[in-house]
Amino acid sequence: MTAVNAPAGVADVPSGLPARVPTPEPGDPRLARLALNQRTTANWSLREAIDGCVAAGIPSLGVWREPLAEVGVEVGARWIREAGLRVSSVCRGGFFTSADPDERRRAYEENLRALDETAALDAAALVLVPGGLPEGDRDIRGARSRAAEAVAELAPHAAARGVRLAIEPMHPIYAADRGVVSTLEQALDIAEPHDPDVVGVVVDTFHVWWEPGVLDQIARAGDRIYSYQVCDWITPLPPDALLSRGMVGDGHIDFATLTAAVAATGYDGDVEVEIFNADVWAAPGDETVATMARRYIELVEPHLSPRITP
Amino acid sequence: MTAVNAPAGVADVPSGLPARVPTPEPGDPRLARLALNQRTTANWSLREAIDGCVAAGIPSLGVWREPLAEVGVEVGARWIREAGLRVSSVCRGGFFTSADPDERRRAYEENLRALDETAALDAAALVLVPGGLPEGDRDIRGARSRAAEAVAELAPHAAARGVRLAIEPMHPIYAADRGVVSTLEQALDIAEPHDPDVVGVVVDTFHVWWEPGVLDQIARAGDRIYSYQVCDWITPLPPDALLSRGMVGDGHIDFATLTAAVAATGYDGDVEVEIFNADVWAAPGDETVATMARRYIELVEPHLSPRITP
Repeated sequence: MTAVNAPAGVADVPSGLPARVPTPEPGDPRLARLALNQRTTANWSLREAIDGCVAAGIPSLGVWREPLAEVGVEVGARWIREAGLRVSSVCRGGFFTSADPDERRRAYEENLRALDETAALDAAALVLVPGGLPEGDRDIRGARSRAAEAVAELAPHAAARGVRLAIEPMHPIYAADRGVVSTLEQALDIAEPHDPDVVGVVVDTFHVWWEPGVLDQIARAGDRIYSYQVCDWITPLPPDALLSRGMVGDGHIDFATLTAAVAATGYDGDVEVEIFNADVWAAPGDETVATMARRYIELVEPHLSPRITP
Repeated sequence: MTAVNAPAGVADVPSGLPARVPTPEPGDPRLARLALNQRTTANWSLREAIDGCVAAGIPSLGVWREPLAEVGVEVGARWIREAGLRVSSVCRGGFFTSADPDERRRAYEENLRALDETAALDAAALVLVPGGLPEGDRDIRGARSRAAEAVAELAPHAAARGVRLAIEPMHPIYAADRGVVSTLEQALDIAEPHDPDVVGVVVDTFHVWWEPGVLDQIARAGDRIYSYQVCDWITPLPPDALLSRGMVGDGHIDFATLTAAVAATGYDGDVEVEIFNADVWAAPGDETVATMARRYIELVEPHLSPRITP
């Protein structure tokens, strides 16, 4: 909250405003749980993302399957291991709301491949994005049922590989075309029939900050929080709804309260910064990572440990 | 669903696609509950909107306070009465989430004026748009509490004037900057402590179509549904989030199911078409109204009467 120690001339991405706190150095213990989601630096290859994390002292990476496929799972997994990084999540499985049996079969098989990759990377979880309404289909209740069925179908295969499935509830702005599971409550309803070590949820501040009762739902989630992701809700909303996420601290989200609620469940995993935003992507990756680290230190990390009353 | 009887050369607004059904004539009994919200034909003055409704056989108008103020409440009310129209709603009261006592006082007084206008127009309800987060304020729970308090403060004044207050839950896309009440469930939680003849809700398909459990919430609302509004959720979302609404039938919303659920509560009020969309606004008002009437006849009106099992 103070700019006193911020080095002159350092600007935040993408606001261009002066940095409010110094950039933490590699090895700073406050960075111990920070993860870069690859989409935050979308122009970086997997190799560049690994090197960028190492250079900035970010110990964990959220890996996307597409850039991983460019080098192959085996090579990617080795690079990550040799760099000493953790994999906070693999993005993405899911997209299993089709009403067409052939398409559902293809989605199922694709998800099995995603499970194998997640296991090979020893990642904390496979993120499941449920998918939207099929073309021309207006039955959102049906699509939600199929999402729940697909999770149930996948769960034993995940368990067999020691992989955790993290259902990602998505902001209702994406209910039609991306994710029919719209609230943390709904994601937990889908997860709860399953083993708490196999099926859980992603808590992404962008998706759930507005949800009535979200703090109760976070408490309810307990050990089922497999991934905590942070990015901000900014206004006016950028023109492309898919790129509408803001840098932590640029918008309306109360990170202190949400982070404290997640921490109170005992969550001790990584905190991943995932930002889809054209202005962020236009900046050099290392500046994005530096801003992300500063904002995390300022707004998120102080709330990660439950306060102990003496 | 058939284009068999559609006159050649008639196109829908804004899609430009051929009309799928004939435009209903004035006097068609299927138009008996259709209302034009003034913002759907935003370029029309109040006088033009009244004349447009009469010409198209639309019996009811959702009035906005700004165009009403241009001619004055007394003149506007007389025009509407002389034209034989009903007023399905007055837009808008609310915007009472400020944390500043002076601003809250001003909002309260503005809402009292809105109540007077609603009474003068003999409108079915005053629509309350709660308002967003105050500038720089990230406490959405606090803003929601203030919205509930403001409704409680306003209720006796509404009752004294015989005006009904319709809380409008808004799609979470607007939670930060327009409406912190994000679900029908939340709106009903605010309404329920009050007299069911004084405080109720708007059910707007655009805002609630994605809500988990929305059909149960509509049933719960019962007599508290004061306004049923229809417009569609389209993808890709237009660049301006405030103008992202689609013509009924152009998007992903299941009007049959939602309309039948509203009808099953015994709702017998008007059905208002409210569309904020730059492409709709670029079209001549009479073409917009004609498209709206066709889509209503095709997709909404057949589901308005609860089916009687013989």
